[in-house]
This record gives sequence, structure tokens and C-alpha cells, in this order.
Amino acid sequence: MSGPLSVELLQKMDAYWRASNYLSVGQIYLQGNPLLDSPLALEDIKPRLLGHWGTTPGLNFLYVHLNRLIKDNDLDMIYIIGPGHGGPGLVAQTYLEGSYTERYPAIEQNRNGMRRLFRQFSWPFGIPSHVSPETPGSIHEGGELGYSLVHAYGAAFDNPNLIVSCIIGDGEAETGALAASWHSNKFLNPAHDGAVLPILHLNGFKIANPTVLARIGHQELAALMRGYGYEPYFVEGDDPAAVHQCLAKTLDTVLAQIRQIQNTARSLPTTQNPARPRWPMVVFRTPKGWTGPKVVDGKPVEGTWRAHQVPIADFKSPEHLRQLEEWMKSYRPHELFDKQGKFLDELAALAPTGRRRMGSNPHANGGELLQPLAMPDFHEYAVTVPKPGLVEAEATRVLGKFLRDVMRLNLDRKNFRLFGPDETASNRLDAVYEVCGKAWMADVEEVDVNLSVNGRVMEVLSEHLCQGWLEGYLLTGRHGLFSCYEAFIHIIDSMLNQHAKWLKVSTKIPWRKPIASLNYLLTSHVWRQDHNGFSHQDPGFIDHVANKKSDIVRIYLPPDANCLLSVTHHCLRSRNYINVIVAGKQPQWQWLDIHSAIHHCTIGAGIWQWASNDGGDPDVVMACAGDIPTLETLAAVTLLREYVPDIRIRVVNVVDLMVLQPPSEHPHGLEDREFNKLFTEDKPVIFAFHGYPAMIHKLSYRRRNHDNIHVRGYKEEGTTTTPFDMVVMNNLDRYQLALDAIGRIPRFADLVEKETARYWATMQRHKLYISEHGQDMPEVQDWRWNA
Amino acid sequence: MSGPLSVELLQKMDAYWRASNYLSVGQIYLQGNPLLDSPLALEDIKPRLLGHWGTTPGLNFLYVHLNRLIKDNDLDMIYIIGPGHGGPGLVAQTYLEGSYTERYPAIEQNRNGMRRLFRQFSWPFGIPSHVSPETPGSIHEGGELGYSLVHAYGAAFDNPNLIVSCIIGDGEAETGALAASWHSNKFLNPAHDGAVLPILHLNGFKIANPTVLARIGHQELAALMRGYGYEPYFVEGDDPAAVHQCLAKTLDTVLAQIRQIQNTARSLPTTQNPARPRWPMVVFRTPKGWTGPKVVDGKPVEGTWRAHQVPIADFKSPEHLRQLEEWMKSYRPHELFDKQGKFLDELAALAPTGRRRMGSNPHANGGELLQPLAMPDFHEYAVTVPKPGLVEAEATRVLGKFLRDVMRLNLDRKNFRLFGPDETASNRLDAVYEVCGKAWMADVEEVDVNLSVNGRVMEVLSEHLCQGWLEGYLLTGRHGLFSCYEAFIHIIDSMLNQHAKWLKVSTKIPWRKPIASLNYLLTSHVWRQDHNGFSHQDPGFIDHVANKKSDIVRIYLPPDANCLLSVTHHCLRSRNYINVIVAGKQPQWQWLDIHSAIHHCTIGAGIWQWASNDGGDPDVVMACAGDIPTLETLAAVTLLREYVPDIRIRVVNVVDLMVLQPPSEHPHGLEDREFNKLFTEDKPVIFAFHGYPAMIHKLSYRRRNHDNIHVRGYKEEGTTTTPFDMVVMNNLDRYQLALDAIGRIPRFADLVEKETARYWATMQRHKLYISEHGQDMPEVQDWRWNA
Repeated sequence: MSGPLSVELLQKMDAYWRASNYLSVGQIYLQGNPLLDSPLALEDIKPRLLGHWGTTPGLNFLYVHLNRLIKDNDLDMIYIIGPGHGGPGLVAQTYLEGSYTERYPAIEQNRNGMRRLFRQFSWPFGIPSHVSPETPGSIHEGGELGYSLVHAYGAAFDNPNLIVSCIIGDGEAETGALAASWHSNKFLNPAHDGAVLPILHLNGFKIANPTVLARIGHQELAALMRGYGYEPYFVEGDDPAAVHQCLAKTLDTVLAQIRQIQNTARSLPTTQNPARPRWPMVVFRTPKGWTGPKVVDGKPVEGTWRAHQVPIADFKSPEHLRQLEEWMKSYRPHELFDKQGKFLDELAALAPTGRRRMGSNPHANGGELLQPLAMPDFHEYAVTVPKPGLVEAEATRVLGKFLRDVMRLNLDRKNFRLFGPDETASNRLDAVYEVCGKAWMADVEEVDVNLSVNGRVMEVLSEHLCQGWLEGYLLTGRHGLFSCYEAFIHIIDSMLNQHAKWLKVSTKIPWRKPIASLNYLLTSHVWRQDHNGFSHQDPGFIDHVANKKSDIVRIYLPPDANCLLSVTHHCLRSRNYINVIVAGKQPQWQWLDIHSAIHHCTIGAGIWQWASNDGGDPDVVMACAGDIPTLETLAAVTLLREYVPDIRIRVVNVVDLMVLQPPSEHPHGLEDREFNKLFTEDKPVIFAFHGYPAMIHKLSYRRRNHDNIHVRGYKEEGTTTTPFDMVVMNNLDRYQLALDAIGRIPRFADLVEKETARYWATMQRHKLYISEHGQDMPEVQDWRWNA
Repeated sequence: MSGPLSVELLQKMDAYWRASNYLSVGQIYLQGNPLLDSPLALEDIKPRLLGHWGTTPGLNFLYVHLNRLIKDNDLDMIYIIGPGHGGPGLVAQTYLEGSYTERYPAIEQNRNGMRRLFRQFSWPFGIPSHVSPETPGSIHEGGELGYSLVHAYGAAFDNPNLIVSCIIGDGEAETGALAASWHSNKFLNPAHDGAVLPILHLNGFKIANPTVLARIGHQELAALMRGYGYEPYFVEGDDPAAVHQCLAKTLDTVLAQIRQIQNTARSLPTTQNPARPRWPMVVFRTPKGWTGPKVVDGKPVEGTWRAHQVPIADFKSPEHLRQLEEWMKSYRPHELFDKQGKFLDELAALAPTGRRRMGSNPHANGGELLQPLAMPDFHEYAVTVPKPGLVEAEATRVLGKFLRDVMRLNLDRKNFRLFGPDETASNRLDAVYEVCGKAWMADVEEVDVNLSVNGRVMEVLSEHLCQGWLEGYLLTGRHGLFSCYEAFIHIIDSMLNQHAKWLKVSTKIPWRKPIASLNYLLTSHVWRQDHNGFSHQDPGFIDHVANKKSDIVRIYLPPDANCLLSVTHHCLRSRNYINVIVAGKQPQWQWLDIHSAIHHCTIGAGIWQWASNDGGDPDVVMACAGDIPTLETLAAVTLLREYVPDIRIRVVNVVDLMVLQPPSEHPHGLEDREFNKLFTEDKPVIFAFHGYPAMIHKLSYRRRNHDNIHVRGYKEEGTTTTPFDMVVMNNLDRYQLALDAIGRIPRFADLVEKETARYWATMQRHKLYISEHGQDMPEVQDWRWNA
């Protein structure tokens, strides 16, 4: 078949492909005899066979062709692998191009190195079976399917010269995250962003089933891709020579198209906005387990789901041994590697060199490229707080001005973006629109505001896309912040898991350089979703994150605007963490001036002396974490001083939740001595917490005073009601907290009955009032700190 | 404009629409003066304005037209509302058709009733602002966007005469779950399933942004819908009369097309499979906030995102009051309601009657239709266990046979399906294919096995679809089970939240009848993902679920096949719960015969006397929950008996995790007395747990002996390695547990040094062995219970 490849080049590329397939099969099967110098024997086979063959030859085929494209055109390209279970392929390719040995010198380019390469795969203390942080050139594990395309777009934003080749598994394409990701092209500007080249790897099968996209016919699939805004190019076949020519030709075409799109956009006068182009994408339909055994034990394997993992197993059968040997020899290894096991120079020369190799591209080790953010002096955004509780502010609106200037100061570097599911303004961060708009490449109408082809605020009604874009952006060495309604951040729980795992492993790999932290601002939180109701009320993301490895996660609950500023400033400069910040957007009393806030946030928890009167010997510790619990706690303090004026109260506020754990469990954990200084060793602690109460017990159960810690928090009660009724429904209200305190102080035992009666009377009044007026009692609405 | 509606009918339908819009605006704004009998005054306005107008007129318009379709054709139809924030519309519609008053007699069809209707909306002790379980006719909240279409398909499966009209918000369409849901049409068989009519409500805006699908042009949108396998019909405009005619005509057309598809499929000979049809869908493009104020304070509102919530606020401005009055009067309420406030009979007559009303359709209150499953006698599937630890079995494979017969016995009723993301066979439940295949309406090839247009196993590589289909199926009164890799079930954390919230509220609504529980079988769990590696290892779903309301959630960790049978049998018969069952699929030693298993599971936790030798006075309690922790605990017991033969050990196994909580916290919680009988009041407890260790502390911190409970579990360590190394990496292995025990028994204090040395020597041996052999030491592989 004719095409752009000369006979010689085609043969060489095919040989390169054979070499990578050979190395892939070797990794799955062999622990010795890597070059098949002697007849394959049972002892050459690994005792446990773990790995995935099916997707691998296709990934290898594409890699070889992308190498040609890179080399011919001096491209800056990375390769994102949706079907990350094709780990052997990526390891093989980066080994052949030399990247692997540079990162792991023991995996030499010779027989011994090849033996180690094979043996380490899916082997204890070796490397995982999937593409992973250990794999050079990867920013993407793919162990959990669905996130390749959204990562690809995240990587491409603000990288005008980068092309991100993204291999999407056809099984992966059935996931929600992937299905939504196609629309990312409405947010990518060819003038200043790079290109994403989606390659849908249509090999037809998953673990045990055909894939949907392989079985809807050519017309429907083409319509789907056009509907997503792409121009599909189909490369289909099972004859390698024909597919080589077809893919080479297609890649030349799509590269030309990408170039044309970019040239058009980049040559426009700056006053003119580029139109959204129809980006090319490739449908690559080849057999699953291509070149592998056609039939095993009488059942078809190549081109079926049976090729998904290890196509031949159970080597007690001599026939299987023979079949494996035949399969491996079909790649003609002795035409590919020299006597010493080194890949032939004339083939190795097909790969790009240096940082153009996809296994050595610095974008795939983002820390190498990371530039710190230019930061404004956050003191300048501080709310003036002459004394606690004197002024009101909306914490996130204050933060918005700071973020606006972070954006402004880094506009030149183009390395900071804000992400949010249609909620940036709702979350009161809209000051940022003073310096840049929201990214938008789709159609525009007259009524639209703040949309811009140059926007750096990424808004789409998909938490998956926000998370995935941000991950891709961070992993390629940039910075960002994701603001989200607290309840709906659970949509990306599983993505968080995978990012946390990536970070945990990456920090142990010397050549992986630190990247900017993944920062969440959770606002519109559980206690202020009284208007949207129960579906919008869930503080459980804290619990989810707290299960992750402690050297990765940080959780902050700033009680006011100045604390929020201090915490966010810290988070934006941190590396390799997942930082969760929970803060409300509604007008609230402010407690700390900026200096006190910085001091408080630096330690993470402290006694608020101005609210305490314990003289070092409290009757009760009123602890709080979170803005609303802090408000209710301080209100409870005023009630207690009124009810039982001689009470000695200590108020402790916790900003950094992890201080509650012992230092053995979390690096932020307070030493027991410090913990006891705050919470005492034997006094009752009434702890008002933003989230589910059990979290506080989980963190503090090893502390000496734990049995005295009594926690109030969200107990899964809520509806559309008044703000104060939300805390009442969950027994986190000031009256309950005050009653809790009195009930736990022995010298007030006689008062409990009277105070309980007062409590019920108040509750009665509350219910009658809100039922009649639809809003909170004046004594609640007008409350202010005056102790 | 001409069309199928006579002038008179059009006018009546428009009047009906005006009435519903009037009632919607009334709900958002008014607390008095419902019929505007007197000039609108400030005191008529609610003090807090909470609700969403923007989507509501469109929802109302569609409802009126679907009413006509139902009535003209005697249809069995339900209405699923993606933009669930359009709550006022659904309340208005069900009020007008009479369903609302039947459920809530105080909301009478008169002035007083209307006043209550208005006032209760978004009012304390009233109703939520979103569509919710309180709303008649809803199976879907929509507070969290994205799940309408997948619920619609779940409702349509096995309901051949049902048409599910599904309104998809154009913002909602950007979410991952929704984007994946369109492909559900590859799993729906027109011969025996009902029809889903997707109506994409393209009103152009979200909270603060245009929607993607509204801004990609007609051609691309049409291609997208065709690519998804639908035939799109566009109804577009802002002139009500024209849109009335166009929508009426379109609905007649799509109904005819649905009928034709169904007739064709249903008239085939039974030997012939129906082809996948191109189902119709409707794109309904109308202005956001249609008929609302065009301009407020000089800014355009109708047709912009500003119409999303409350278009006119701040009634300190008299102009605003006037504008609201004008807006409400534009619906001409006095032409719609009589003097007493009753909806005019001639208009009310447009609605269907009885159970044909969408607000009274029993499918939307699935418990009304629920039939218990016919269940086989699960004893018959039991593994014969002559004594503990004598035989091996794969727990899920044993369960598979039981599920096969559950499927078989209910084939006639067509009310049971299995759901799984391409993992049913991998999870060893494939016996079910003996009685039915996997649902598949896409193309079929020769190599395929077990695919069937009549399949009842639902496999697609999307946890979102599995979860959403099952929810829709359960909510309409059927049964199911979702089997999933443990790590990836986090993908649906947020869907679980919303279903749990739905159940929690529903159980308090007298007319909502109990539905079958949502059952999860989590297998391929954290301890047996040594082959796939770190990305596949996460036991945190337990933590996520445990935060939900305790009267809703149940978590089971059966230690062997017979316990798994007993637990699953129980779960399949339960109602209104979320049941999480965690059980491995690998061959494991079996501990309990079926009678012991039933006894054990019924209590939820117990002393395994056959493994204990404490004579009522243990040195240590070796507790365990989960199959692998149980194995390691029993192996630790054999080690301890060898090392320190005079040790007195009690083995406690926990199946039902919630027994650990006090009864005040969970209905399954053991009384303290019972708990202490198991765990003692003062002896060390070494607790080997399947998940994150803190969970056990969280559940048991109120118990007297809590300070002595020492938990081992998953601590976020893992990779591709051997099975035993997984427990070693997390300090859950038998050697560690044995050492833990010795270290906590005072009379063995002298032995600690020696045993610690022995432990490290063993660990050294382990590491050397697996590093050399790639598999576990023979003493681990060959271990068996022989104490």
C-alpha cells in the first residue's frame, strides 16, 4: 500500500514496533532468558503473570508513529495514556528511546538490563503493572479510567507549543468524566494554548465485553465526534503495513491541520478573537491484542476481550510454552537487538532525542518547569478589625480581591488559573473578572458578560472537568485553585484519590520534582445551604481527604476573612499537597486582625484570650473549628456569661484540623504537651465542628483528655429553612452548646434542670418564630459579640 | 401559526400554563394575598426570597403539553426533572392536576389552600426549594445535577408500557454523568422495556454562564444527538402561540415514532432480535425565565442568566413591587381561578385523571408497585464446612450461583437486575449467565458471548450508569445489586449521598412506600488488588457510607462464603436501606458452616469459640472484620499458640460493622453489656480491620474498653506486589498482629524483645523471598488453620 513512508522507513518503523511489542510481552512473562538465546523453559516464566497485553500493541504502534512525527517536525509533544493498564508498552517505548535507562541506570541497554526490565515488571519492589508515576513521560496513571482527555486539556492550556497526544481507550470513553471531557475544546484557545490530539483507540473490547463506541457503526461515531466539535480521521485495519501507511498519512494531515488552526489564530490582529476551530481527532481501530496469539486452547484471542490481560497462562501445558515462544519469536528479536541485547542503532535512530523524547519531555515532569507564583502582599487585603466582632465581611469576597491580584501579577507568566463549576461569582470571587474573563470559545451573545477567548477563569458545570483540568495544569508545572460548593465536591472523590496516590508515590521518586499543591476552596458550605436544601448539604469531603496519606493532605477551616487570606496565601505557595480550605461566603462577624490571624493560622490552633476568662483554670473549654461553629461558640459564650456569670471559659479555635492528631500521625499534629495546654488534661471540652462529629474523635482519640471531648457537628439533618435553624436541627446551636457546657461542669449540677427548661423554651420560641416569620429570631439575627 | 391545536385548545393550554407560572411565581414571592385581590403590598412578600424561576416556565410548558399527550393517548408517563431547582413548577403542576391536594389535604383548591401553597415553599417546616421526595410524581431530586437521564432509563427498564419524559437541563448536560447517560439507549430493548423521551431544555444559561450546548450551533448539536443514537426534533422560539403549536406537533410525531419502534420490535417473531432503533428526542429551546420580567434595574433578565433564581429582589424599591405585581397580573389570574381561588373546571379538565396524572403515577412512588423477590433457599448454595479451615472456596463464585437462581426465579416478574462496570465475570458472578445474558442492543460480532437483547445483567464501563440505572430501577419498585471493584465505587460517592438523602426524607413521608434497598457488593477489594496496584486499592467507601444517617446504612464484612450468602439474602429482602457488602473473590479458607454463619450474621459479631482458648478470661482479644483480616488474625492465633503456648486468646469476628456503635447511634449497635461480653472491659484488643483503622475508633470510642483497642488496617500503602506483602506493607500481617498481642500482655513483657527480633527476622525473610521468587513464602502460601 502506498503512502508517505518509504519501504525502508516502513520496515524500520515496523521493526521498532516489533521491538516494543517484544519487550512488552517479555515484561509480562519472562524472568530470565530475555533474548531467547536458549529454548524457552518453564523456569524462564514468572511464577505470577500480571499485566495487560490487549491494549499494548496499539499503544506501541501509536508511539512509534508519534516519534516519527516529532522527529520530522521537531515537535514538543507528550503522550497521555488513557488505558494506563498498557504499562508494559510505555515502559518498553521509553526504554527503547533511552529515557528509561537515564532515569533508572540499572536498566541498561543490554542483555542484563533487559532481564532486569522484564523481571521488575509487576514484581515485588519492582514497578507497578500500570503506567504510574514511576513511568518516565507520564503525567497520568490510568489505573482508574476516564481522566486522560481532561488531563490532556489541562496540560495544553497556556502551553502554546505543546501538542498533547491523548490515547483514549474505547472502554474509558464510556465513563462519565471522559464523556464530558470532549467538550473541553470549547475552552481552549488556539492562539495561546497548545493542541490536544485525541486518539480514540477503538480496539473493541473491555475486560469481558465489547465497547459501546466500537459497536455503533461508522456513521454514528463520526456524527458523535463532529457533535463534540472534532473532525474525525479514521485509521482502521489489521494489516500492519497498510495501517502504517494510513496512520502516517493521517498524522501528517492532522498535524498540518493543527498547524493551520494555530497559524490562523496566531496571525490575527490582537483586536480580533479567533473562532473556535474544528480540531482534528483520530479514530484508531485495530485488533485488541494485535500480533498476539490468534487462538489459545481452541478459543479466539486476538481481536477479542480474551486478549485483555495475559493471553496465555498455565504453563504446565507444554503447548502453551511453545506457543509463547513462537509468539515472542514472531517479533524476530535477533533482527532488533544485537548480541549484547542492545537495540540496533539504525532502529534507535528513529526516536527523537533529548527532551523531545516523550519519555523525557519536561512537561511530563512538571516540577522541572515550575515557577513560583508572584504573590501580592496579602496584608493589603486584610479586613480592618479594630476589635473582635466589630465588623462584618464576606470572607470569600475579601479573598477574591487577593486572588484577582495573584491573577494580575502572573498574567505575563500565564501560569495561574481559577477553576469552578459555574460558581465563581456565586462564591463571590468575581473580583478576578477585573483582570481577566472566563475562558469561552463557543458562541457569544450580546447579553454575555466576562466571557473571553483569553479567559483564565475556567467555568463549566462539571466538577470532573474542573478537577481534571486543574490536575493536568498542575502536573505540567503550573498553579491553580478550585472553588466549589462543598456538597458537590464529592463528585470528584475518586479523582482526588488518584491524585493523592500520584503525589504520594511521586514524592518518593527522586527525579519527580515537586509540583504546586492542589488547592480547594469549599464554600457555599453545609451551614449556609439553608436556601437550597438538603441536597446541597454535605461536609464529608473533609472525612474523605483525611483518609489520605498524612504527608499529602492539609485541611483548613479559617474562621474569618483574615484567616482565610493567611491560609490561602500559604496554600498557593506550598508544593505536593492537597489543601482543603472550607470557608463561607456570607457576611459574618470578623474576629482577628491580620497579625493575629497570621499568628493563629501558623500555629493552627490557639486559645482566643479575648473571648476567654479562665485565668488558666477553665471550667470548660469551648472549642470550635469552622466559621459557623465559631460563631455559635462565641454566641454560646455570651449566653453562658449571662446565665452563669462566674463561669470560667476558655475558647479554643482550630484552623488547621490536623493539629488535633498526634505528631506520629500527621506532621502538623501538636505534641501532647501543646495539645493539653489548649484542651487541658481533665476539663470538659465542648467542641463545635463544621463537619461530621466523629472526625474530631477520630483525630483526637489518642489524647489524654479525649473522654471529655464532646463534639457537636453535622448529623445529616437539613432542609430548606433558616440559617439558624440549620444549626438547631443539628444541635450545634449556641443554646445547645451552652447547655452542653453547663451540663458538664460539676459545680453547676444544680442548674441543669433550670437551664434545660430554659433551653426548651427557647427552642419553642425559635420554632414558633421561624414558622411564623420565615426568618430567624431578632435575638439571633442581631446577635453580636459583646462579652 | 397553524398546527394540531385548535384555537380554543391552544388558548386553554396557554391559560393552564399561565396558571402554573402564576402559582410558581406566587410560591417564590408571596406569603399572603395569593389571588392579588388587593394591591400587592410589602407585607405580602416573603421576608426571604428563595427559589429558582429561570427553568420553571419551560418545565411548566412541557408539563402542560405532556398532559395533553397523556390524555389524548391514555399514556402511562412519568416526568423526571433534571433541573430540579425548578421545584415551584412541579409543585404548581401537581397542585393544578389535583395530585398535590390528595397527598397534602391542607393545600386545598381554594384561596386558603393557595395561600398555604405559596407560603410553605422554601419556608421553615414547609417544603424545600427543589423538587424533592415531598413532591408528588418525582423519583428524582435534581438538587445535584446530572442524574436525570440515567434515572429515566432505570425507570424504563422492564416497564414496557411506561414512557419516561426526561427533562435534561442544558447546564446539567455538561456533567459527566449526564454526558455518559445518553448511551443508555444501547441497553434498552423496545420489545420489553419502556421508552425514554429525552427533552433537552435548552434555555441557554446556568447560574452565571451560558451553557455549552446552547452555544455550539444547530448543526453540531444535531450531530451530537445523532451520534448518541437519537433523532433530534427541535422546538424553538419565544412566541408562546407558535411554540405551543410546534411542541404539540412535535410531541405527536415523537409519540408516533415511539409507538412505531415499539410495535415493530414487539411484533417480531420471538426468534428474531429487534434492532437498536433511533429513538426520538426533543431539543426545546426557549428563553430562560420566559414570561418573566424582561428588564430589572435597567438590566436584561428574561433570556439571560439573571433569570436563574429570583429575578426581582429588594422590595424596598416601590418600583420592584409594582413590577412584581405587573408580572403576576400578566398571567391574568382572574381568568384562571374562580372567586374562591379554585382552578377553573374547564381548564382543570385538560389534565389527565387518577393514576394517569404524572403527580399520581404509581411508578413515581415505586413502593406502591414493589413485589418481593421470589428467593431460593440459600442454604442450598452453602459450602460444606465440616470444620473451620478445612476447605477453600471463592466467596463471590458461591454467591454467583445463588444470584443466578434469584435471577431465574424472578425472570417472569422481570423485577431483578444485576449491575456492574464490566466486572461481573471478573467478580466471579458469571453463573448468572446460565439463565440470562448481558443487556446489549448495539452491534454484535461473532466472537461475542453472553450478550443478549433480553439480558438482565447491565454491564457498561461507567459506575455512574450502573448506579443511576439501579437507582431508577429501585425507585420505580424493583430490585437489584451492584457489584463493583471496591476502589472505584468512590466514583459514585456523590450519587450515593443523594440517594441516601432521598431515602432519609422518604421514610418520613407517609405516602412514600418503602422501596428495595440499594445493595452493593464490593469485591476485588483493597487486599486483593496486589496485581493491579495502588490505583486499585481504596477501602474508603465504608467511611463515606458510615457518615450517612444510621437508619439508612448497613455495612457488612462477611468473612467467608456462607456468611456472604446469609448477608446477601438478608439484604435482598430489606427495604429503604443502603447495604454495603465487602467480600473477596479469591479462593479462601472457609470458617463457618451455614448454620453457624446464619447465627453469626444475625447477631452481627461473635466469639469464635473454635478459635479461642480463653476459658472466659482472655489475655487478649483478637478481633477481626473482613475476610483478609480474619485470615491474618487466625494465622496470628496459630503463631501465638506456637510462640507462647499458655496464651489465652479470644477471637471475635465482626460481620455487621455497625454493631460496634452504641445503640443510641445505630439501631444495630450492641448494648454496652453485650459489647463488653465480646471485647471485655479491660483486656487488650488487637483489631484487624479491612478498611482505614480510624473507622473502628470512630465507631467504638464510647465503649468502656476503647483505650485498649489497637487497630490495624489499610494505611494507604500499596503497589503491585504479592498478596501477603500487601498486608505486610500495612502492618496487618499475622506476624505483626502476633507481636501486637504479645506486646500488650503484661505477663509476656519479658518476651517482647525476643519476639520483636523474631518479627524482624521474619520480615527480612519475607522481603528476600518475594524479591527473589516474585511470590509469597511457602509458609504463607501453604498456611492452614490447625490450632
